[in-house]
Amino acid sequence: MIKIAIDAMGGDFGPKPIVEGCIQALKHKLFIPILVGRKSEILPLLPKRYRDKISIVEADDVISMDDAATDAVKRKESSIYKAIELVKNGEAQGLVSAGHSGATMTLATLRLGRLKGVLRPALVALMPTKSSRKSVILDVGANVDSKAEHLLQFAVMGGCYAEDMFKITTPSIGLLANGEEKSKGNDVTKAAFKLLDGYKGFKGNVEGSDIFNASCDVIVCDGFVGNLVLKASEGVASTISGLIKEYIRKSPVAITGALLMRKVFKLLKKQMSYEEIGGAPLIGIQGCAIVSHGKSTPKAIKNAIFQAINYVDTGVNTHIVERLEALKNKEV
Amino acid sequence: MIKIAIDAMGGDFGPKPIVEGCIQALKHKLFIPILVGRKSEILPLLPKRYRDKISIVEADDVISMDDAATDAVKRKESSIYKAIELVKNGEAQGLVSAGHSGATMTLATLRLGRLKGVLRPALVALMPTKSSRKSVILDVGANVDSKAEHLLQFAVMGGCYAEDMFKITTPSIGLLANGEEKSKGNDVTKAAFKLLDGYKGFKGNVEGSDIFNASCDVIVCDGFVGNLVLKASEGVASTISGLIKEYIRKSPVAITGALLMRKVFKLLKKQMSYEEIGGAPLIGIQGCAIVSHGKSTPKAIKNAIFQAINYVDTGVNTHIVERLEALKNKEV
Repeated sequence: MIKIAIDAMGGDFGPKPIVEGCIQALKHKLFIPILVGRKSEILPLLPKRYRDKISIVEADDVISMDDAATDAVKRKESSIYKAIELVKNGEAQGLVSAGHSGATMTLATLRLGRLKGVLRPALVALMPTKSSRKSVILDVGANVDSKAEHLLQFAVMGGCYAEDMFKITTPSIGLLANGEEKSKGNDVTKAAFKLLDGYKGFKGNVEGSDIFNASCDVIVCDGFVGNLVLKASEGVASTISGLIKEYIRKSPVAITGALLMRKVFKLLKKQMSYEEIGGAPLIGIQGCAIVSHGKSTPKAIKNAIFQAINYVDTGVNTHIVERLEALKNKEV
Repeated sequence: MIKIAIDAMGGDFGPKPIVEGCIQALKHKLFIPILVGRKSEILPLLPKRYRDKISIVEADDVISMDDAATDAVKRKESSIYKAIELVKNGEAQGLVSAGHSGATMTLATLRLGRLKGVLRPALVALMPTKSSRKSVILDVGANVDSKAEHLLQFAVMGGCYAEDMFKITTPSIGLLANGEEKSKGNDVTKAAFKLLDGYKGFKGNVEGSDIFNASCDVIVCDGFVGNLVLKASEGVASTISGLIKEYIRKSPVAITGALLMRKVFKLLKKQMSYEEIGGAPLIGIQGCAIVSHGKSTPKAIKNAIFQAINYVDTGVNTHIVERLEALKNKEV
């Protein structure tokens, strides 16, 4: 059975939502969760009937959001370090952490190592679209100043991910740029365009709006750009939702209207919410690491765990290694 | 009285919304509009009582969205070329175009020239926030591969713009990066951070979400990044609005709810809508050019004209030249 190591301590709200998310996940899927953190804090949160289904690995130290990611390598007693070691030693196949994302990415890359042929691991976000499909966008923050050959590899890794996770035979791959024409882009994306030209599924440049209109399965960009686009998008969505709430509060008629529209808002939330996705896989490492938001709810943690299970289940890592090898031999 | 040249032909829907927007603007402000385009198409759209208030300059050619921006320099009979010549010759003080934005920016830069000391003009977007203020973000598409010294100048120009247009004494200026810490950023933004450190109002790195939370008056980024962030944000907003409409249509109860919430949606539209802004000024050129969306409505054109009038009125260009000179002499 798949074993998933879960950093129980790293989230903004302590172990409670993490442990609850873990229990929720157990209700739906068969897997073995290993919670890593302070036993004294975790155990009281575990109902008795779950104590034999969940193991706890003691880790006394917690890397906080204020710590530098580079310090993480020395903090061997931290929950994230120990969770990653479980994967490294084969005691777990994947890990989930809502802790310091820089520390998680640094440790996962350094301790687990990169997959054969991978130059740089990338962080993958699943973005909501107007349709039921999510779009796969990478890199959203593992790297800055990517080179063209990195973007090429992001395309390959994102393509394998979409094939395996969403069962898309030939995922369409777009390169994020400031216009659709081939002449558009910055120096790096123009060079990446040349490398990608002719690659299976590559459809050329796509624009910022294409992330949400489901016109493309995989969208490739540098991590600096991806991070900004992701956070700006979250910012727009939260501004709109905040304004709607504010305007509703001011009008009794609108309050009644909002009650009648409850189902609409519920559907919208389900479609757009980060909770439904739960986390971003760091792709390109030997193993599986899902990076979750510090503010993750139990539901987000549950979905992050599901992501980890699927990631391990589909064998996407083997697929990536083979595809990169084939690309090197000009077979794809 | 301020004269504004208006490219009547360039928009996606022909001269109709442009002419209507021009008439709407005349109802609210005193200025002299000069419509540039095919007289035979413009004249029938002008009610008789406006014919002596609006001049028309004949221009037979129109640069379409499919044309290359670089060709624009040769198309001397085009409406955008002629509108820019009016500004160059002092027959108008500003121009508005909903035509090919690349052509407008190229022509305005080449024909009008850069302001003294300006390395690269930048496109300025006014972004809606949760408060009544807009945030000023630049560059959103005039340049790609900006260097640190360009970003420094964008900060200076954006700061002058916010001071003059929004009467903010010391606008806070943020550098768009993948995290707030000084250590965050890519090579270019890290170098720009050093140049900006100590500049009046500079508050360090800001993140994608800061564009909409009104935490910062001016946000500085490379045009490649700015374009992506802008289009992704528009994409999110339009996806949310599309989904709400789709879900409402499916439920009679929700339709009633939506009717009761009409005022809320109207306020939200007013707050978030591009129409209320109307266009993006190209800052750093000798003159004033407002770049509007091809799909601009009459209301958007009206607001773009108001922007042009204010831009000219406030004398922001003189301000920019003085500030850059002072920066060179290390006086600011």
